[in-house]
Amino acid sequence: MTDLFQAPKGTRDFLPPAMAVRRYIEDAWRRVSLRYGFQEVDGPTFESLDLYKVKSGDEIVSQLFAFTDRGGRDLALRPEFTPTLARIVAQLGGGLPKPIKWFSIPRCYRAEQPQKGRLREFIQWNVDFVGDSSFKADRECLALCAALLFELGLTPNDFKVSWNHRDLMAELLVGLGIRADKLADTFYVLDRLQKLSDVERDKLLQSREFSPSEQKILHLFATEMGKPEAEQTELKALLSAPVPRGVYEKIMILQDQLSLPELADNFHWDIGLVRGLAYYTGFVFEVADAKGENRAVAGGGRYDGLIEIFGGKPTPAVGFGMGDVVLEILLADRGLLPDKPLGGPDVFIVNASDDNGLTDLWASRLRRSTFDRTLKTVIQQGLRVEHSYKSTRNIGKLLQEAAAAHARFALILAPDELSRHVVKWRDMQSRTESELPLSQAETLIRAACSGGGD
Amino acid sequence: MTDLFQAPKGTRDFLPPAMAVRRYIEDAWRRVSLRYGFQEVDGPTFESLDLYKVKSGDEIVSQLFAFTDRGGRDLALRPEFTPTLARIVAQLGGGLPKPIKWFSIPRCYRAEQPQKGRLREFIQWNVDFVGDSSFKADRECLALCAALLFELGLTPNDFKVSWNHRDLMAELLVGLGIRADKLADTFYVLDRLQKLSDVERDKLLQSREFSPSEQKILHLFATEMGKPEAEQTELKALLSAPVPRGVYEKIMILQDQLSLPELADNFHWDIGLVRGLAYYTGFVFEVADAKGENRAVAGGGRYDGLIEIFGGKPTPAVGFGMGDVVLEILLADRGLLPDKPLGGPDVFIVNASDDNGLTDLWASRLRRSTFDRTLKTVIQQGLRVEHSYKSTRNIGKLLQEAAAAHARFALILAPDELSRHVVKWRDMQSRTESELPLSQAETLIRAACSGGGD
Repeated sequence: MTDLFQAPKGTRDFLPPAMAVRRYIEDAWRRVSLRYGFQEVDGPTFESLDLYKVKSGDEIVSQLFAFTDRGGRDLALRPEFTPTLARIVAQLGGGLPKPIKWFSIPRCYRAEQPQKGRLREFIQWNVDFVGDSSFKADRECLALCAALLFELGLTPNDFKVSWNHRDLMAELLVGLGIRADKLADTFYVLDRLQKLSDVERDKLLQSREFSPSEQKILHLFATEMGKPEAEQTELKALLSAPVPRGVYEKIMILQDQLSLPELADNFHWDIGLVRGLAYYTGFVFEVADAKGENRAVAGGGRYDGLIEIFGGKPTPAVGFGMGDVVLEILLADRGLLPDKPLGGPDVFIVNASDDNGLTDLWASRLRRSTFDRTLKTVIQQGLRVEHSYKSTRNIGKLLQEAAAAHARFALILAPDELSRHVVKWRDMQSRTESELPLSQAETLIRAACSGGGD
Repeated sequence: MTDLFQAPKGTRDFLPPAMAVRRYIEDAWRRVSLRYGFQEVDGPTFESLDLYKVKSGDEIVSQLFAFTDRGGRDLALRPEFTPTLARIVAQLGGGLPKPIKWFSIPRCYRAEQPQKGRLREFIQWNVDFVGDSSFKADRECLALCAALLFELGLTPNDFKVSWNHRDLMAELLVGLGIRADKLADTFYVLDRLQKLSDVERDKLLQSREFSPSEQKILHLFATEMGKPEAEQTELKALLSAPVPRGVYEKIMILQDQLSLPELADNFHWDIGLVRGLAYYTGFVFEVADAKGENRAVAGGGRYDGLIEIFGGKPTPAVGFGMGDVVLEILLADRGLLPDKPLGGPDVFIVNASDDNGLTDLWASRLRRSTFDRTLKTVIQQGLRVEHSYKSTRNIGKLLQEAAAAHARFALILAPDELSRHVVKWRDMQSRTESELPLSQAETLIRAACSGGGD
């Protein structure tokens, strides 16, 4: 016997229950995006390797699944969708009406060590709002992100939204005495501060050649960021000093403008929020589990310079991403995943007659749709119909099978009724039965099933 | 300025209209599969390279996008879904209730020269019926395949279904005098006969070392297969001879058993249909454009030995695949692709007041869903709402924008009406307007939108 093959490391097999959960999440992403006026796009699963270097430099290569095609072209599986989006907008941007409001639901790939909430293959909802530089576009992205979480049953108590502003933050840091040429290093350090031990932190600060006064500020940040907001007295004192106060006031105005009523007071400016990616220019935000147990559920920000880097015209843009893995962990933790994700058939055919062909006949009739060639659309949908593949004609056993399949109704074809030109119709939930005349059965069954289901 | 990047050769960018068509096809695949009681599954986009060699030998490697991960494992992008399915069933088969009725809609990859109907990256609908060796499973796959084509508006006049049976065909060939050890070569030749010129055909026959009598039979096949069925007199004479007649009769019985009323007489036994893949064991079929212009729209067959090759228990199985590229060409050719695949919003907000915040307020209210945490489901869906990003307050211009977006309704917020505590509500198709009292507007709008849309 051959050894059994396994799925590659960091990937998943989606059996029907897992696949149904995946579709439940993807359908919500799509539904809510369309509701907010975003249109779906997609690109290739792989792009030229160089496309990923433009934005992230050569170091990205070690995190990619890269390969060469037969023409010798270097390609890589997409680690994210943004470079594809930037490539498309750089090519076509001038010909597209603005604003461009696009979403996508690509599978993405990272050649890194799998861990909880982080796999080598995952699915990511991407939302991008291109061509509007105002805070309204930032706010609409934020609103859509929140709407998705509400759509899946989460409440503002389940998650927290942090935000910051890259450019204002730079202005603030310079106001506090950080040298302009140390800003990139400062963002790098800020992004890691809360993940490091004290020793690691001090080592990092020294390695980046910060001056003693710069180190003092970053020390203060590190200490204060670990405290609840109300207790960050030293930080507040620092920000209220005359020099940075003007910038801090701008930040507070933006906080008001971005605040969504539906997030209530669950939306905080976080001085430590940088979001690693080098290309963010303004607003950045992150959604995390309120319990603080998981990685970020979603994150994004404004990247006004990116389209230009890819050869396009200067184009303002803001967007965010949300992965399926962490979101599913969060929903499972809150008991919000559907109990019966697979659903069941509308009708389960229970054939207790001698005529096996009747099962096929009824299944085929009820599953059939009616397509209108003029309107180019299905005007009457077929029903979800299942039946047993066992040879038994025992109505009791067949009804058990119907119940196990979560069928809404059973259509019972039994010799007695058939000889009287009727069929039995059973509501599986209420366990009530009626008789339908054969000549009207299809119409009556379709009517019964049209409320709910599918 | 940087040179603009292009999408890799043989791949596609899906801008919103193309993406909407893709979803239109994928949704039909999913909907019809569920209707027939098949459940959706998926696997990784890449598998270990060895998985693909099991079924297809080393020669498959040159047609794959292969790469190595950092642990040195050889991987490849999936060229099809069947090896993944066989791997999963081999692992779990014993624990799964039979029959296993699964479908999937994976993206697949082929490292070959792109041409019409054949790209390097495509989407394929896969249907597999595992654990039933009877012709009923074959017939159900065929019925599902046909139902999909009908669901998209095609009629039996638009396509033709050919079938054959590998084992009966082998029996027939042996009956006609083909040596048993030349059967594999014969299938290989039959699969190519209709694609070759006379010269190429004769060269192929000689290279495979067929005897003169074998060559004579294959010559006859080649000549007859090019004719309409009614004119294949030599072939019919051959099959009616005493020796192969018994097998031919079995084939004709199967033809009756497999025939679906909905396909009418558009279902033909094709002695030349082999379907390239080496693992088919019984029934094979193929759907082609009736105009004969394109590649196969769909194809499949029975592969009773495959699960065992992958280390599982002997398990009968039948399945088929249908790619998006050829199907879309066929639908486009028949004028069956939707005219407005993108759809439009339920409501377009026309804000002619001085209060910009009103747009956000109404958009947010109407887009909102109501989730029931006990039922774990959305009990009232939000609406698709759009609005203008232009600064104009001109109602006429804004209504033009609403019409261009294909909105069903416009919600008009104008100073006069607002001062009277009403809003205007316009049906964009009938161009009729009414006034809604502010206090009941949301309820009335949701009711108006609940018929149709989304």
